[in-house]
Order: sequence, then C-alpha cells, then structure tokens
Amino acid sequence: MPFSVLGIAGSLRTGSYNRRLLAAAIELSPPELAIAPFQRLSEIPLYDADLEARGLPEPVAALKAAMASADGILIATPEYNHSVPGVLKNAIDWASRPAGHAAYGGKPIGIMGATPGNGATIRAQLALRQALDLDAHLMAAPEVLIARAGERFDHEGRLVDATTRRLLSRFLAAFAGWVARFHG
Amino acid sequence: MPFSVLGIAGSLRTGSYNRRLLAAAIELSPPELAIAPFQRLSEIPLYDADLEARGLPEPVAALKAAMASADGILIATPEYNHSVPGVLKNAIDWASRPAGHAAYGGKPIGIMGATPGNGATIRAQLALRQALDLDAHLMAAPEVLIARAGERFDHEGRLVDATTRRLLSRFLAAFAGWVARFHG
Amino acid sequence: MPFSVLGIAGSLRTGSYNRRLLAAAIELSPPELAIAPFQRLSEIPLYDADLEARGLPEPVAALKAAMASADGILIATPEYNHSVPGVLKNAIDWASRPAGHAAYGGKPIGIMGATPGNGATIRAQLALRQALDLDAHLMAAPEVLIARAGERFDHEGRLVDATTRRLLSRFLAAFAGWVARFHG
Amino acid sequence: MPFSVLGIAGSLRTGSYNRRLLAAAIELSPPELAIAPFQRLSEIPLYDADLEARGLPEPVAALKAAMASADGILIATPEYNHSVPGVLKNAIDWASRPAGHAAYGGKPIGIMGATPGNGATIRAQLALRQALDLDAHLMAAPEVLIARAGERFDHEGRLVDATTRRLLSRFLAAFAGWVARFHG
Repeated sequence: MPFSVLGIAGSLRTGSYNRRLLAAAIELSPPELAIAPFQRLSEIPLYDADLEARGLPEPVAALKAAMASADGILIATPEYNHSVPGVLKNAIDWASRPAGHAAYGGKPIGIMGATPGNGATIRAQLALRQALDLDAHLMAAPEVLIARAGERFDHEGRLVDATTRRLLSRFLAAFAGWVARFHG
Repeated sequence: MPFSVLGIAGSLRTGSYNRRLLAAAIELSPPELAIAPFQRLSEIPLYDADLEARGLPEPVAALKAAMASADGILIATPEYNHSVPGVLKNAIDWASRPAGHAAYGGKPIGIMGATPGNGATIRAQLALRQALDLDAHLMAAPEVLIARAGERFDHEGRLVDATTRRLLSRFLAAFAGWVARFHG
Repeated sequence: MPFSVLGIAGSLRTGSYNRRLLAAAIELSPPELAIAPFQRLSEIPLYDADLEARGLPEPVAALKAAMASADGILIATPEYNHSVPGVLKNAIDWASRPAGHAAYGGKPIGIMGATPGNGATIRAQLALRQALDLDAHLMAAPEVLIARAGERFDHEGRLVDATTRRLLSRFLAAFAGWVARFHG
Repeated sequence: MPFSVLGIAGSLRTGSYNRRLLAAAIELSPPELAIAPFQRLSEIPLYDADLEARGLPEPVAALKAAMASADGILIATPEYNHSVPGVLKNAIDWASRPAGHAAYGGKPIGIMGATPGNGATIRAQLALRQALDLDAHLMAAPEVLIARAGERFDHEGRLVDATTRRLLSRFLAAFAGWVARFHG
C-alpha cells in the first residue's frame, strides 16, 4: 500500500504554475506515494477565531480531515511579495488550530515551488518553513525551486523540461523516504 | 495638518488584542498623526488572479484607495504559526498588485504587535518585514513587541499598562518623524 | 550506552549565559545523553577558502571530527543583532564544507538560547535554523527561549530558576527521543 | 563633493566573486559616490566581549572609524549555508557595539551579492537584512542578486556580462539617491 499524500497548491488561479507542478508531481510520483490534490482551497474562509468558535466551516473541516488522514503533505507554493501567499497561510492558520493540535502535526511535509521570475520561490519557501516548523517535519533537501516557470511547462500546462522532471522525480523519491521515516 | 495614517489590525476577532492595540495607538497618537482604522479586512476575498483580472472586488478597491491616499500605514499584527496571519498577508497580496505598483509603494510603514504568549510577535514582524520590504519604507525602531497581552489590557479592552503606554507613545513619536522624513 | 552529544556554546565570553546554559544542560541531561562541550571555539580562524585549500587548521579538524563522531549536536546560542553570532556561524561555515558533506550532515540537532533582554534569542534561533536546515535534522519543539537570563542564573553561574530547569529537562528528554529517531 | 561610501566584500578568498563585484561597483560608480573598499576584514578577530572590554583591537577600531566617517556603506555578500558568512557577521557584531551605538547606526546601506550557483544570495541577503535592520537604513530595491557568477566575470575577474553591468549601474544610481536622502 502506498503512503497517502495530500497535495496542496497555494494559488487559486486556474492556470497556476503551482497547480501544474502538483499535477506533474502526481504524474511522476513513485509507487510508494499516492498523491491526491486538495481541491477546495478557494472555499476556505478568512480565519476568524469568532467564526471558529461557532463551529468549523465545512471546507475547513474537510481540509483538516484530509490532512489528518494523510501520511504526508506535499505543498506547491507560489511566491507573493517575497513570502508565502496569504491564501495558503490562511489555510494553514485554520489547520493549525487548536494550538499544539495542528491537523498536520507530526506529519512529514515536502515543499516545492515555481515562479515565472528568477526568485524561484526561495523566499516563499523560507517563510513557509518558518510557519510549519512549529508542528511538522519538513524535508530539507533536495529542493524544488523552479525559476522562469514559463519556459518549463508547455501550452497545455504539462511540465516538459527534462531537467526539471528529473529533479522532481528525485525530490519525490526522497520524499517517499522521508514519509517512510515517520511511518512504519 | 497632521499626516494621515491608515491603521490596519491583522485579526478579525472582535476582542482582538491587536485591534485594541491599534485603538490605543489612536488614543495616544501625537498631533502630527491622524490615524484612521481600516474596518473592512473581513470583506477582502482570497486573492485570485483570475478574479483580479475580471475587476477589483469593491472592498479591495477601497483598501487600495485608502492606502494610496494615506501618508503612512500603521499595522498591528498578531502572530499565527510563527508568522504573519494569512488574513493580513492576503490583504497585502491584493494591495501589492500590479507588481512594482503596490498601493503602499514608497509609503512609510510602522509595525507593532501583541500576543497573549511570550513570543511577542517577534517572528510575525520579521515575516511581515520580509513581505513589505520590497515596496515600502519600514521603520526599524523602536519596536512594539507586546508579550502576555492579557496582562496589559483591562476588561473593556483598554491598554492600561503604563510601561506599554509609554513605549507606544515613544513609538508613535518616532513614527511621526519617520512619516515626515518621506513627506515634505 | 548513552548517545554522544557535542555541545557548542556560541559565545566566547567567560561569563556567557549560553556557556552556563550548556553547563546546565549537562547537569540535567538524562541518562540517554552524554553531552561533551566543544571547548575550542575561540581557536577557529575566520573562514577563508584559500586557507582551507592549503589544509584544514587543526582546531577546525578537531571540530569536524567531534561533530562527525557525535550522535547529535546541542547548540546554545546568544543573539547578536537579531541573528546568530558571527563566531558561531563561522564555525558552521567551516564544518559545512565541502558542500553536501557537512561534518554535521544528517545529524539530529537541538537548539537553545539565552539573552539578558526580552528577545529570548527568537531571531537568533530562526537565523540558525536557516543556516543548518540545509544539512541537518533540527528538532522543532519544545523551544528553549530564555529571556532576562540575569534573573535565572545565580552568582556562580548556575541555572537556579525552577521553571527554566523544568523546561530544560523537558527539552533534553525530547532531544533524547529526537536523537534516538535517527540512530538505532 | 561625492558621498563617501565604505565598501565591504564579505569573503576572504583572493578570487572571491564578491570582491570582484565590489571592484565592478567601484568601476561603475556614478560621480555622486566615492566608494573605498575596506581591506582588512581578515584581521578582525572573533568577537569576544572580554577582549572588547580590554580595549578594541586595532583592526576593529579601523573598521568602526571607517564606517563612522562614511556617508553610506555598500556590502557585497556571498551566501554560505543559506545565510550570511560568519566572517561578515562577525565584523558586524564588533561594529554594532555598544548596543544602540553601532558604528553604522543610521547609515544608508546597500546590499548586493553573487554566487556561483542558482541561489543568487537571496537567503544571505535576507539574513543580512535581519541583522542590519536594527540600526541602519537598508535600501530595498533594486536588488543585485547574481547567480552563476562564473559566467559573468572574465578570467581577470572583471564583470563583463552586459546585463549585469547595467543592473549594477542602475543599482548604484538608486543607491546614490538613497544616500542623498539621508544626507543633504
């Protein structure tokens, strides 16, 4: 039985490079990993402790359940303003609650990212690590830092750059090992 | 004429310490500053470039207009997961667009924060600086890093701790000077 | 047989709180851990690739050998200028070489820190994590973030604050588990 | 009279790309700036408060005097282990003392960096900003983030890549304006 991995792409745009990157990870995933994307990020409301106190919004409950039942989590993050998108951080804020009992607590997590420019999500990934380090086990290397994403995907949104595909395959093999380290 | 400052508290909770902190800043503001709070953070939708392409949601347009017309911006941030709340980062993501033309571009910005625990928003403020440094002029010191906020506000939510009030007054005086440096 | 742990205090000052903190960790260490302090930080020269190419300075070779033979590493860091001391980072720079073959590569590492002020080494520990994450396995929690260190050690430099001693004991028990996860 | 700028390259290696980058900045500097490199980084000892208490080592006194008399500071930093080199941070630690009276306090500072790899010193520059933000005025943009430095300098170590030379010229023009903002 493969390990179940929840995939989260941190952008809502239909043509998002990071959705495509997550799709490529699913395409290239090794037999040890079964990656299923979380499709409802756009339904997660803004975090509000008053709202939380009145009962979890259903999409939030779905996110937390999907995290809790997964063996690992794989995140594809864009970079907005040298940092993690608010959209993605907002979902993490919900999922981290209550303090000390994050839905992703103790889970192995892999992070990758793609940008159209040269920054390669280096700063977004640093920011994301700062947020998740508190509760989860983040794989450190290899890193998937994709710059100039426009040159690496074709018009249908498929990752076609051979070097990047090899890097992604190596990353996924390492991530399978990282997940296995914390399970079984 | 005082400088106009847009105040933003990065939490949606009614009893939020950071809303109270912003209220205290308004109470203690020197004559050089007229601080008006932005009240519509809860109406800002999740950032989505497709949505943006179809026309700015009205609350986003209001946020951007309020920023653009202000002489400075004052942010009171909580800390969620060692970082800036997604809610606040999401508003910044909207306001930063289009790239190179942020609504807060070139503005003097002051940052302060309060938490119930010991972390004092140190990590949230670092994360917020990383996000805003790209486009704005962030005042570095003095810092307003309020730990154990529960001991500093009374039951009506008023900042009553004398040391913190003095610190806040010093911060606001310095911020008035910081705003003046970039205007006039 | 206990796990062998190399302890490094990131300050050269004789009366350093972080040397004292490391001494307290040795005093309170559980039977699973045998912590030996690295005593020669002051002998590590400034990193210079030309110097390295001519042959490792003996104190650097000693540091790398001590790291390589340890089951884990425990670092007590001060905070200088919102970051890790150059003295400590310089030792890491030597030990990290050659790229991909750090002497601490793959090792479990625990980080703690003490400051006389309120900052509690939060920013230094973030900076240290950014530097070490590349090669090592950093324990995330619990954190040892000691503010106002002057109130917690007595005149002989012994950690006497009961709350801090309990925190340190909990941290060390968790660190023993963290080391065990990567060995045996 | 041009503004006097102290240039600091954060690497000790003779053939360092960042020394070359600083040399290129001197070559391309506009008439408003007179950049003089600090040549004695290798003589700065490891920071030790006990040593400091006995009297400043002469090279440290020279560094502090050079900073204090300059109108601005320009730093070329390599990236070691996702962060600022210990060698450079160590010099900053000396220069920052005593607390609140850094030799570079209130100075306009520009940061640039070059690496042989793809990381472009993004993480080193973030780390350096975290360290210097406390006391100085760091210019935010444009950024000089040079990846694959080996392709941009010729065998004599001269910056020959036309795009990078233009970027550096734009950066220096902006830095001249940044320095002027704080002087004059």
